[in-house]
Amino acid sequence: MSELNGAQSLIRTLVDAGVEVCFANPGTSEMHFVAALDTVPEMRGVLALFEGVVTGAADGYARIAGKPAATLLHLGPGLGNGLANLHNARRAHTPIVNVVGDHATYHKQYDAPLESDIEAVAGSLEGWVRRSEHTKDVGADAAATVAAAQDAPGRVATLILPADASWGEGGETCAPIPPRVPQAVDATTVKDVAAVFGTGEPVALLVGGSACREEGLRAASRIGAATGAKVFVETFPARLERGAGLPSIERLGYLAEQVAYQLDGIKHVVVAGTKAPVSFFAYPGKASDLVPEGAQVHTLASVAQDVTRALNEVADLVAADTEPVLAPESRPALPSGPLTPQNWVEVIGALLPENAIIADEANTSGLMLPMATAGAPRHDVLTLTGGAIGYGMPVATGAAVAAPDRPVLNLQSDGSALYTISALWTQARENLNVTTVLLNNRAYAILRLELQRVGAASGGPKANDLLDLSRPDMDFVKIAEGMGVPASRATTAEELAEQLQRAFAEPGPHLIDAVVPPLL
Amino acid sequence: MSELNGAQSLIRTLVDAGVEVCFANPGTSEMHFVAALDTVPEMRGVLALFEGVVTGAADGYARIAGKPAATLLHLGPGLGNGLANLHNARRAHTPIVNVVGDHATYHKQYDAPLESDIEAVAGSLEGWVRRSEHTKDVGADAAATVAAAQDAPGRVATLILPADASWGEGGETCAPIPPRVPQAVDATTVKDVAAVFGTGEPVALLVGGSACREEGLRAASRIGAATGAKVFVETFPARLERGAGLPSIERLGYLAEQVAYQLDGIKHVVVAGTKAPVSFFAYPGKASDLVPEGAQVHTLASVAQDVTRALNEVADLVAADTEPVLAPESRPALPSGPLTPQNWVEVIGALLPENAIIADEANTSGLMLPMATAGAPRHDVLTLTGGAIGYGMPVATGAAVAAPDRPVLNLQSDGSALYTISALWTQARENLNVTTVLLNNRAYAILRLELQRVGAASGGPKANDLLDLSRPDMDFVKIAEGMGVPASRATTAEELAEQLQRAFAEPGPHLIDAVVPPLL
Repeated sequence: MSELNGAQSLIRTLVDAGVEVCFANPGTSEMHFVAALDTVPEMRGVLALFEGVVTGAADGYARIAGKPAATLLHLGPGLGNGLANLHNARRAHTPIVNVVGDHATYHKQYDAPLESDIEAVAGSLEGWVRRSEHTKDVGADAAATVAAAQDAPGRVATLILPADASWGEGGETCAPIPPRVPQAVDATTVKDVAAVFGTGEPVALLVGGSACREEGLRAASRIGAATGAKVFVETFPARLERGAGLPSIERLGYLAEQVAYQLDGIKHVVVAGTKAPVSFFAYPGKASDLVPEGAQVHTLASVAQDVTRALNEVADLVAADTEPVLAPESRPALPSGPLTPQNWVEVIGALLPENAIIADEANTSGLMLPMATAGAPRHDVLTLTGGAIGYGMPVATGAAVAAPDRPVLNLQSDGSALYTISALWTQARENLNVTTVLLNNRAYAILRLELQRVGAASGGPKANDLLDLSRPDMDFVKIAEGMGVPASRATTAEELAEQLQRAFAEPGPHLIDAVVPPLL
Repeated sequence: MSELNGAQSLIRTLVDAGVEVCFANPGTSEMHFVAALDTVPEMRGVLALFEGVVTGAADGYARIAGKPAATLLHLGPGLGNGLANLHNARRAHTPIVNVVGDHATYHKQYDAPLESDIEAVAGSLEGWVRRSEHTKDVGADAAATVAAAQDAPGRVATLILPADASWGEGGETCAPIPPRVPQAVDATTVKDVAAVFGTGEPVALLVGGSACREEGLRAASRIGAATGAKVFVETFPARLERGAGLPSIERLGYLAEQVAYQLDGIKHVVVAGTKAPVSFFAYPGKASDLVPEGAQVHTLASVAQDVTRALNEVADLVAADTEPVLAPESRPALPSGPLTPQNWVEVIGALLPENAIIADEANTSGLMLPMATAGAPRHDVLTLTGGAIGYGMPVATGAAVAAPDRPVLNLQSDGSALYTISALWTQARENLNVTTVLLNNRAYAILRLELQRVGAASGGPKANDLLDLSRPDMDFVKIAEGMGVPASRATTAEELAEQLQRAFAEPGPHLIDAVVPPLL
């Protein structure tokens, strides 16, 4: 009989499998897990004040670390609070070991106030859910959960941990279980897809998933350069490597109109590590399927397969002697004058440090960002994969935990900021190198646009009022300072540049409340 | 063919059924609903910046208004963000018309980024879920949802509204459908339960649900006074009427140890409008069932029945000539000196205005509140029925919308405040008369207690760090001001009294950051 309780066997097993960080918002049913942290020094506990910060941070951590973090959530309501960012993680194929505490097994029959259907909510993630009923099984269940989370292409795997399984004696650790690695694409598919590029008809190559890293992008760029195919990155990549010295590949647009323009005249859409493009939302009288009429879709590799290898194989067939097209070093000049939707991105492009991580939730304010940063030093961009807003601040937090030596830049729209604003407190607590540029246009600007795009009657006063964030104006300097993060306000490009340089130069988090008028 | 679209028929039907407020955090798929607000002047739209505020406000509104508000949530992730406060509403039996927008019916097959299993998440509330697939049915579905929400004892009823059902033409309004009213308790049960009070053995009467209003409490008090039974209110009543001139009935304790003391020696537990007491959490080696060993449980009325009438009938049998025991007018003297867990509640008791509504999420800081306010002017107390923290600020917001002429006092612990802090912005936007007293003890104090109570090894440094909110200290004055709410800090009883009087005297919201040391 071991001398471990269930919680200790769990944490020990996680650490042995390489899971070294737990983002936590615990309650009573998780107190043994919390106590057990002191018995396993290799596990770092990071406290958040809201579960959406926990789950978003776990997402950001894994996107950068390349391996999962654990969460610690308090029963069904805690899982509910974390669900939106788990949804984003699911869409990003991010591995997360999602630990949800529950009542003791024998306590559930009493329908105590916090009792709820955890399986139903976790199951909505279409992931993997296991309930660990017996202390002696907790270690094995934990190892299975870590493997499930890492099975290609990665997923949110939920381990429900009843309090008595956690506190019981007789816990047994379990050795790591190797996860399922990405499968190679068969040679016939590679050959057939390669032939598509030789038809002489216009081809678009759309890459996603793990192919959004350097190696996949280089292969895609070679294919485009050799064959004339238009190459695009999926609209919301989980992690996109870009900047000077890397291929600069345009992302497919968010709006159906943009995509129609990008794919105009295309006869073949080759998808690699993603799916054929669909509209983010439906609009009256407009198609949901964004593949041009009459065009054929060819799948080179699903997101669960070895996309990069398949792209390399196609490139070797159709572009053997072609080099990828790499972005030259190039930064915009530092602009001046009052902030505009155009000049703030130029400030970012001009000053982005080496090896930065951008957590991008700038939404409408960031439409011109990609051009301004294409020739900036090499950096990663993390995007809003699932469309559930309130992702930026938590993901930036987790990314900074994963890469303490890299500068993290969170570009954050005001309308999305309040969902998970307490991430700032965790950034302060952990002294994380996150610089938040809060794009404060005082509106749900994207919804003003969408109100028109869906064909809703032009907004009356009540409708417009529901899209207006200016009554009262939020003062993000005060909000950030209230959570322990030094903050300042920028209304001109010069102020933004000066404050951004200072923020990057000083350790720890900073927030800049950038008052930028709406683009639209 | 009508000239209404689906959204217009929905809102018109809601208004006709008495639903006049919609708390909303909309997105693209809800834009037609937003636009339709301008065509139905009777419907008020109240914007929140996070869905937990929306759902908590709908809960608080209905607890005070006695009828449902509607929500407007954005697809599955929006529902997820609102789930914790819907859980509390479910436990409170609060009627809520929970409107969740979804993709257009024909768009769902494309598995666009925001696609998720809304039914699974809504179904976890064990409520009532309907998807309105066709525009012409939206009105009828809305009427059915309102009725389902109000069917005794009240519930969260979810209406999933696809975007094309909303924007389609040919909407038809539907007349209100009468909800199921509470059933009367049969005469035999009344007689049998009345006999329990005549056995000569010690009896406890535990009342809950709708019996926590004046009439039910008066009947319960009469029964106690005439028979010697101990009378208790359930631990977390949705709405408890109390104060001078009303029966002052002790609530059953939160901790099992308190309940053991309260029910010591009891042989019969009569429950009316609630269930037999169970422990909030399980603890190693302690019972979950808090009914004393050997005692019998007798159910007078379930929460769905006419509890108050049944109590009156029992009282007429066993206490025909007995008057209820009413709390005399009595306020504590205004204390002085640095704030303590004892003196801050005395300030509240001394200054609570007439007809106030208390949204109580003071948690450990509020343990001594009931005594200090028992003789204050008549007031309502709303409590954390489901245990999902982050309820206080939104519920206070909704209560103030329901009762604009009543002062609302939100007693808010710091550990629970950050989940739904943006409720302050909605309070400022709507100029609501909410005074928030933020009990800032800089710890998850309840978890410090629970860490010991669950028998976890005494907390090591990592465990204690996860329960500590002092690194960094939060400055709730700045946070509130950043969201447009005037705020001040109190460190002494005199300061709290002065600031509280000012807050009650001025219209609109105020926050007082009351620096109170932890009780424990």
